[in-house]
Amino acid sequence: MKRLLNLHTHLSGLAQLLRWTLLALPVAGVVGSAVALFLWVLDRMTQTHAAHPALLWGLPVAGLAVGWLYHHFGKNSERGNNLIIDEIHEPGGGVPARMAPLVLLGTWVTHLFGGSAGREGTAVQMGGGLAHLLARWFRLGPEQVKILLLCGIASGFGAVFGTPLTGAIFAMEVLIIGRVNYQALVPVLVASVVGDAVCTAWGIHHTTYHLEVSPDAGLRAPIEWLLLLKVALAAMAFGLMARFFATLAHGIQRTLKRWVAYPPLRPFVGGLVVILMVHLLGSRDYLGLGVEASTPGGVSIVSSFEPGGATPWSWLWKTLFTTLTVGSGFKGGEVTPLFFIGSTLGHALALLLHEPVALFAALGFIAVFAGAANTPLACTLMGIELFGAHYAVYFGVACFVAYFFSGPSGIYSAQRLGVPKHGPTSIS
Amino acid sequence: MKRLLNLHTHLSGLAQLLRWTLLALPVAGVVGSAVALFLWVLDRMTQTHAAHPALLWGLPVAGLAVGWLYHHFGKNSERGNNLIIDEIHEPGGGVPARMAPLVLLGTWVTHLFGGSAGREGTAVQMGGGLAHLLARWFRLGPEQVKILLLCGIASGFGAVFGTPLTGAIFAMEVLIIGRVNYQALVPVLVASVVGDAVCTAWGIHHTTYHLEVSPDAGLRAPIEWLLLLKVALAAMAFGLMARFFATLAHGIQRTLKRWVAYPPLRPFVGGLVVILMVHLLGSRDYLGLGVEASTPGGVSIVSSFEPGGATPWSWLWKTLFTTLTVGSGFKGGEVTPLFFIGSTLGHALALLLHEPVALFAALGFIAVFAGAANTPLACTLMGIELFGAHYAVYFGVACFVAYFFSGPSGIYSAQRLGVPKHGPTSIS
Repeated sequence: MKRLLNLHTHLSGLAQLLRWTLLALPVAGVVGSAVALFLWVLDRMTQTHAAHPALLWGLPVAGLAVGWLYHHFGKNSERGNNLIIDEIHEPGGGVPARMAPLVLLGTWVTHLFGGSAGREGTAVQMGGGLAHLLARWFRLGPEQVKILLLCGIASGFGAVFGTPLTGAIFAMEVLIIGRVNYQALVPVLVASVVGDAVCTAWGIHHTTYHLEVSPDAGLRAPIEWLLLLKVALAAMAFGLMARFFATLAHGIQRTLKRWVAYPPLRPFVGGLVVILMVHLLGSRDYLGLGVEASTPGGVSIVSSFEPGGATPWSWLWKTLFTTLTVGSGFKGGEVTPLFFIGSTLGHALALLLHEPVALFAALGFIAVFAGAANTPLACTLMGIELFGAHYAVYFGVACFVAYFFSGPSGIYSAQRLGVPKHGPTSIS
Repeated sequence: MKRLLNLHTHLSGLAQLLRWTLLALPVAGVVGSAVALFLWVLDRMTQTHAAHPALLWGLPVAGLAVGWLYHHFGKNSERGNNLIIDEIHEPGGGVPARMAPLVLLGTWVTHLFGGSAGREGTAVQMGGGLAHLLARWFRLGPEQVKILLLCGIASGFGAVFGTPLTGAIFAMEVLIIGRVNYQALVPVLVASVVGDAVCTAWGIHHTTYHLEVSPDAGLRAPIEWLLLLKVALAAMAFGLMARFFATLAHGIQRTLKRWVAYPPLRPFVGGLVVILMVHLLGSRDYLGLGVEASTPGGVSIVSSFEPGGATPWSWLWKTLFTTLTVGSGFKGGEVTPLFFIGSTLGHALALLLHEPVALFAALGFIAVFAGAANTPLACTLMGIELFGAHYAVYFGVACFVAYFFSGPSGIYSAQRLGVPKHGPTSIS
């Protein structure tokens, strides 16, 4: 009872909350605005590329330019998201201030010339870079820098996808495989919510995906055993897909490092192969973000939610295009392509399993990412934030099972291992 | 690439998943059925008490009987949820098989005679007790017993509240304050989903609470700054409320232990005080579960979602009735009373803050529990499963902030500390 009435404890808790909110607010404001600028120009770049398809011929030279910039001015920015994760685990190396403008420019160039890449890498790196800069201005100690970096990741992620709750959980979940620590619960949520709100206030609209739920279907979908079994089966495929993607991306990166000695030449080579693949395949659907198709009737994330909106092998093509683009050194990240791969694979599996394509596209959208980033909780919440709560249990099953089958590592090699996936729980 | 194609790894993963599913299924089936029986009879007990209010006079003797049963036949069952949590942290002490029938009987008797208690304790202890029994039959090793106990908690919790995703996260989150480990991600979700489905298949219906969202309001509520600020303020009150409840419950327990030497006499004394309080207050609204009122126009969880459905001090009365009932040795647990305390406190705060009572009742419902059990993620998901995804961000803010303000311990004293709430993140 004495402790309960200890006003000092409560006031110091309140003071800490206020101070952290005051520190998280500028991070969220700056990062949310940067993401808004990023997305606005990115949209222009995507449209420009669609209007001038010949820009694709410039992709190798664009890659050379991005590679040259990073080689001569990047310091260690090249390490991208992994650098931010490392800096949180072991502060000291520092995050160069140039990281944010470099990745912003690099991603715009990548998409203007048709590279197949994402946007979460840019958001997370801008978030981390700007948060680190603010932390230096505020003269924070190493433990405080960690929290501010987490705030940067959360606000970047929350803003770029318009999913604030997911952004907060993602920042806490991505550091360690199999473990979530709550050392920054409130500041991270503040950063993510404010980052998303600031980005929206700048007029940015996020794509809505159509997973129809009839108004009288009730709050939650009932458990249907056959459907649940099919979702679990598909989730194994989503997990293996995530593992395949990460392995291929790392493999391409390693191979290019071995064969091409001068780093800026690697994206040049990557760009050449992408052009070759476009002409071999005769389709431009796998260039760029892939949220919406550049030509009517083309395959995209949005189309994969509709019957007939994806081919049986769309996921494989997107995998090849993206691992080549990102693995050779273009910028933007892997997550939006992983949404594409997941939703088109889900579409294909839905046809095999005789289930609605929209539901399985949604499940693949979140579950391949859950496996590749080792973030099953964040992705379950992403499903809820993007598609509503009706299928929440199915989202959880898909993400948890995909995580279980996606192997011991993922797309972020700086993640530490907390709890092994198949470890002490095995039955001897 | 070699690792990717390593069929052996994939097959052993699949085999492990199948084996764990096969182990989790009987746990979920047995626990889900036991919870169905429990809830069905509990409903009869509640109705019988409402029809025969004079039963309240029997509460002290009923308490004596429950206390006598536990004292002579309970072994260490008295420790309840804490025993299960301890057994997961340090296997060896064992969970007595009699725990499940004892808590079942004790809870029915508590509610028949009008004690103010919950039902999650019963569900969790039946889950843990039955899972431990099955683990012995299956001859599992200590690491495997842990996983099966987690499955028991998850299926009990998922089934008793009809919230499968929450059940899974709760089981993983409740062990350690500030940390979630994924060592049993898939089995725990299987157990929770199947436990809930089995319970529903037995014909159990869960109460639905009315938080209206107009059909054209969109998937997610927009961020309104003033509302967000009010939610954060209310969440501080919810967190302090949780702390007050836990402190008072532990205090009453300690005081009775010191003053009343013979353990079975403690619930006898508790029962006497409850009768006294009913007559002093002139209201029976704070007896029993409190989900629905026993008299028309009475205060209940359901009524607190409607304008005029709670008094400004309902939360305080429910706190006194429940801490006395549970703290003196009656059975059932604290969670449903915490929902009551939270939703009526939310109702009262909504009037002060000029906001809709339904929203703040929902926020209090999940957030006081989040603070008292130190499970902010599970409670955010509970908000989504019970009230839909529309206010998900507000649910997250309420639960995270309440967790931050609920103090270093909670209602479960066996919880270990993983990450201190106000620890290394303070700004020096």
